[in-house]
Amino acid sequence: MVFENQVIKDIINKYRVIWAIGHAQSLMGWDAETYMPREGVKERAIAQSELSVLSQQLILRPEFVELVDKASQIEDLNDYEKGVVRVLQRRIRIAKALPPWLVAEYSRVTQEAVVVWREAKQQNDFDKFKPYLEKIVDLARKTADYLGWEEHPYDALLDLYEEGLRTKDVDRILGYLEKEIKRVLDKVLSEGKYPREHLLEKMKYRREDMEKINLKTLELFGFPLGKRSRIDVSAHPFTQSMGLFDVRITTRYEGYDFKRSLLSVVHEFGHALYELQIDEKLMATPIGHGVSLGIHEGQSRFWENIIGRSKEFVEVIYPILKEHLDFIEKYTPEDIYYYFNTVRPSLIRTEADEVTYNLHILLRAKIEKQLISGEIKVDDVPEIWNNTIEELLGVKPRNYAEGVLQDIHWSMGSIGYFPTYTLGNLVAAQMKYHMLNEINIPEKILNKEFQEIEEWQREKIHKWGATYAPKDLLRKAFGEEYEPKYFIKHIEEKYLS
Amino acid sequence: MVFENQVIKDIINKYRVIWAIGHAQSLMGWDAETYMPREGVKERAIAQSELSVLSQQLILRPEFVELVDKASQIEDLNDYEKGVVRVLQRRIRIAKALPPWLVAEYSRVTQEAVVVWREAKQQNDFDKFKPYLEKIVDLARKTADYLGWEEHPYDALLDLYEEGLRTKDVDRILGYLEKEIKRVLDKVLSEGKYPREHLLEKMKYRREDMEKINLKTLELFGFPLGKRSRIDVSAHPFTQSMGLFDVRITTRYEGYDFKRSLLSVVHEFGHALYELQIDEKLMATPIGHGVSLGIHEGQSRFWENIIGRSKEFVEVIYPILKEHLDFIEKYTPEDIYYYFNTVRPSLIRTEADEVTYNLHILLRAKIEKQLISGEIKVDDVPEIWNNTIEELLGVKPRNYAEGVLQDIHWSMGSIGYFPTYTLGNLVAAQMKYHMLNEINIPEKILNKEFQEIEEWQREKIHKWGATYAPKDLLRKAFGEEYEPKYFIKHIEEKYLS
Repeated sequence: MVFENQVIKDIINKYRVIWAIGHAQSLMGWDAETYMPREGVKERAIAQSELSVLSQQLILRPEFVELVDKASQIEDLNDYEKGVVRVLQRRIRIAKALPPWLVAEYSRVTQEAVVVWREAKQQNDFDKFKPYLEKIVDLARKTADYLGWEEHPYDALLDLYEEGLRTKDVDRILGYLEKEIKRVLDKVLSEGKYPREHLLEKMKYRREDMEKINLKTLELFGFPLGKRSRIDVSAHPFTQSMGLFDVRITTRYEGYDFKRSLLSVVHEFGHALYELQIDEKLMATPIGHGVSLGIHEGQSRFWENIIGRSKEFVEVIYPILKEHLDFIEKYTPEDIYYYFNTVRPSLIRTEADEVTYNLHILLRAKIEKQLISGEIKVDDVPEIWNNTIEELLGVKPRNYAEGVLQDIHWSMGSIGYFPTYTLGNLVAAQMKYHMLNEINIPEKILNKEFQEIEEWQREKIHKWGATYAPKDLLRKAFGEEYEPKYFIKHIEEKYLS
Repeated sequence: MVFENQVIKDIINKYRVIWAIGHAQSLMGWDAETYMPREGVKERAIAQSELSVLSQQLILRPEFVELVDKASQIEDLNDYEKGVVRVLQRRIRIAKALPPWLVAEYSRVTQEAVVVWREAKQQNDFDKFKPYLEKIVDLARKTADYLGWEEHPYDALLDLYEEGLRTKDVDRILGYLEKEIKRVLDKVLSEGKYPREHLLEKMKYRREDMEKINLKTLELFGFPLGKRSRIDVSAHPFTQSMGLFDVRITTRYEGYDFKRSLLSVVHEFGHALYELQIDEKLMATPIGHGVSLGIHEGQSRFWENIIGRSKEFVEVIYPILKEHLDFIEKYTPEDIYYYFNTVRPSLIRTEADEVTYNLHILLRAKIEKQLISGEIKVDDVPEIWNNTIEELLGVKPRNYAEGVLQDIHWSMGSIGYFPTYTLGNLVAAQMKYHMLNEINIPEKILNKEFQEIEEWQREKIHKWGATYAPKDLLRKAFGEEYEPKYFIKHIEEKYLS
């Protein structure tokens, strides 16, 4: 039995209605991006907001909070039970800390800000967005103060997205990465073995053909389509879990540069696999979901970069590509491999390659940290952005859309979110090298034995759901926390001869 | 302004979270029948049940109930405000009346019963289903007693599905219909102008072709696809409203007998139109939905039977049919009209034509009423069923699947539901003749001016939502309540020369 203690059992019973609201909200979110008629948004927005407030109220019901307090004083809880207490205490702490006016104001300002950001980006007008970003930074600083922090206010925001992540972790990781990535990148560029761009980026495909390729790829991985999952189409690919038995991914079809559709499917598969492999006994409980954004991104990046961009994976899907895309016959698997792995210092984060990606995060994290501490002002951001990206990557934005206005995140109020992308890249590489101690990954890929890779992930990470806090989970799985050296090892071994 | 009274405004504000749960549950229900992966049902069932209980709890919160009580004592409420009070008082009354153990037992028994019913039907084994039906009848009788009734316990159950409907209404309506329908049916059959079956029933179509026909039909009607609605595929066609701005219909593609797919689309369009034409000011309020099953079915039957099975509609869609179905060129519009309007006394309700359909309901209502009063026992039902259907239609079931086990409704605990189907047929015909006083319906159809028909429906029925109780709405619109004479007039004029 996973849950034995009676107090914990009571908590789980009472929690189920909160879980049910979350289930409904997940479906509503998925539907809004896939099938909802356009004007449905009016009522969907009201419903989402009402259910968010209701969910908070239920979490803060005195009898529920007391039960969680009571459980926290029991000494002989097992790990699952401790996990339940940890997750709920954290949710209660956050819900209690933030005054309703702040939550409402954040929601109001960011809803407007997203709209204004879109216009500002289109019109290349930073001044238009500036007052909103100022307001958001101000609200984020207030949020940090209400949540409480010891060493740096940015700590409080980081923790919202990645439980236990601190500014000093981010400094340590990004400091190391900056130095090391620049060293590797210089070499990769001077060796010139990996191209900066590829002819295949321009090749057009028909959506029906690409759909078949994506489905066959998911079939190779054993994705339980129709049984416990689906794949649909949305403007931006994402994974949504309605629970352990219903995890859905999306992709998009731009009609050219087919790796973007394929590798997004492989990426989202990695997210979905995490949720699908959580122990079924954790269904509808407070720990029945992936533990954090960083660990989640680790699973998706592992599949996208470690599996999806490998020579062996290209070998395996080459016949599938050839069957459905006419133009492939003019290219060898090696060509495809280099097409999957161009290295090009560029301005846009979402188009960045494996080697340069984390430098984009570095830039954002630096700015966020200083905005939150008050060292810099929103006014200074465009100049800092442009100078830093040039310093890091040798490229300079010609306009705001290529620079400070490129990402939606800040307009949504997500400050402290970006570092989880880098954590994902680190965890993926970390998983690779620990897995290599036990499993010959290239051979497994070549033999299409993906199941063994998946089982390894299940045992080390997935099955636990949110039982352990992120750092504890990593320590349990790998004997260490977020460790950037594997990522550097990975890009050195892959990109340098 | 629709809502002016401050107490009513408070009620509507507090109600919004209950509405939000309903919105989520509607989406969850729609998704379960359309896109949900198979195993998703495990978690969906938990979520639906948790949210149902939560919704009841919120309806019964003392401060909410007090507010509704307070509002009910205010004298100068406008009609919308009175509607809010009426709808909420009814929901509170029902929620208060039924003890939780009964609700739970009903839910448990019917969940099992649906599974057993399916097996029993397949295996032609009434005895297998009998104990469940006995239990359900027992629970239904208890439900009636808890709800309270004056003249007949069946009253309490009828009212659950059709506010204000009484056994005496059903007796009056069905007594009249039995006599009159049999008279008309005998003549229709002896005249032989309307065929009993048609060659087109066997003709096969490709799903893609039929999809185009359905879409073009919906376009003719001005259905706001993508904007405020969708059409999808499910095992049984249905309409689901997420509110006034997101109303979705489904159909099915069996691959032959194309009228079944097309007329189901026209039927569901009728349901959807009702929700789509409700006054936008009623959004997210207790009266922002169709008022009852019978009135709703009136809208769908109007479109299916009065519009969809008319000579003029066949004229209008003939070119569309010809474009997409090869076999149509061998048939005239007149052939199609008779194919749409075969008259055949038969055993299966769902396949019944316009003339005989209500006799199937009559049979069921008679049995339900007597089961609830205790005049007959479940043991007697198969024999009564077989004798009655033979008496009414001259056909005799060869097995239980063709007889007493054909419908899912009783296994779901829906006793008192069937009569709303007949109310729908009555309201459709009633609407037709009242509309004819103002609008030349055949001409409007021929000219594809469906909008004028829709506007008429909006003004008379749709825009009010649940502002008026069903009988009051009919009186306001037509100066009378459910009136069966129009239905008889309709089938006489249509089917007799």
